[in-house]
Amino acid sequence: MIWIVGAGICRGHLTERARKLIERADVDYGSRRAIELAEVAKARVLERFDDGTLRKVVEEGRHRDVVVLSTGDPMVAGLGRKLKGAGVVEPGISSVQVALSRLGVDLTDVVVIDAHARAVDSRELEMLNYRHLLILADRKFDLRCLGRRKVVLLENLCMDGERMIEGYSDELEVKSDYTIVFVERG
Amino acid sequence: MIWIVGAGICRGHLTERARKLIERADVDYGSRRAIELAEVAKARVLERFDDGTLRKVVEEGRHRDVVVLSTGDPMVAGLGRKLKGAGVVEPGISSVQVALSRLGVDLTDVVVIDAHARAVDSRELEMLNYRHLLILADRKFDLRCLGRRKVVLLENLCMDGERMIEGYSDELEVKSDYTIVFVERG
Repeated sequence: MIWIVGAGICRGHLTERARKLIERADVDYGSRRAIELAEVAKARVLERFDDGTLRKVVEEGRHRDVVVLSTGDPMVAGLGRKLKGAGVVEPGISSVQVALSRLGVDLTDVVVIDAHARAVDSRELEMLNYRHLLILADRKFDLRCLGRRKVVLLENLCMDGERMIEGYSDELEVKSDYTIVFVERG
Repeated sequence: MIWIVGAGICRGHLTERARKLIERADVDYGSRRAIELAEVAKARVLERFDDGTLRKVVEEGRHRDVVVLSTGDPMVAGLGRKLKGAGVVEPGISSVQVALSRLGVDLTDVVVIDAHARAVDSRELEMLNYRHLLILADRKFDLRCLGRRKVVLLENLCMDGERMIEGYSDELEVKSDYTIVFVERG
């Protein structure tokens, strides 16, 4: 059996259910950061999450209880989609939730867009006609695709160098691979 | 000081950070359900979350450390918006996350709409041109406003009588005040 367990993004984000699953498993895997966040001494680091590695983990799950720790929530631009059907997902606190709590904005007032290692197309930006956007961005994300709009950049949430920068999209730059861009509607 | 703390929606959803905040506080308030979920013996039940009650809690927070427990996540159709600026929000696992984990759908592929005690307007439904919808609904929600579309109803997540019903919007009915309606795009 395989559990894909969200480790959250800040220390102490692990839920009581997740802690029990981790302790009960025969083997725990995870990225270095997820293992550090969850403070699981016995866990094994997965350096890559490519198809070959995941296939081996799924194979192991046929005869042992395996936990795969994922930073944030497995269903937010996460492992859950990649391992769909292969295991049971246990939610964790995502960067989206931390960002919304800092901004004081409700999830039902935004649309969340994944722009990690992919470009945002103009059709996605049309959703600004309806709602604020919350874009999960890396350094390759070019803020100029937004034109001139009020934005808040939330960099390195719960990491060293966390900061929040308010300004206009045509005057700022994304400088961290862990950035969330809040784009104000209208 | 006031902390608005998410209690999650299933037993064991409380995070380690949330548990510490609850234990450290001078006084803990919450809805009956949030207190039961978090298993906080010493907490006081708030029967209503009207402006008068919340004003008293905010007043008390000026000279004591107060935790207000909120089911789910305070930033998902939650207390966080209502108490904006009055306290610090600590995220919890929301019904949206549990629904997405059951469905195997990523947050960045949906738009979340709050239809609890409010009608959904036709403009919001236009977002189906871009994404699947995840509608937080109660028994007053009329599925016929969706026309004929493939839907999944997730009823009573983590409660007695939890069930998942697949079908078409013009053939089903919302029968629980704790229902999430997944509406397939296109």
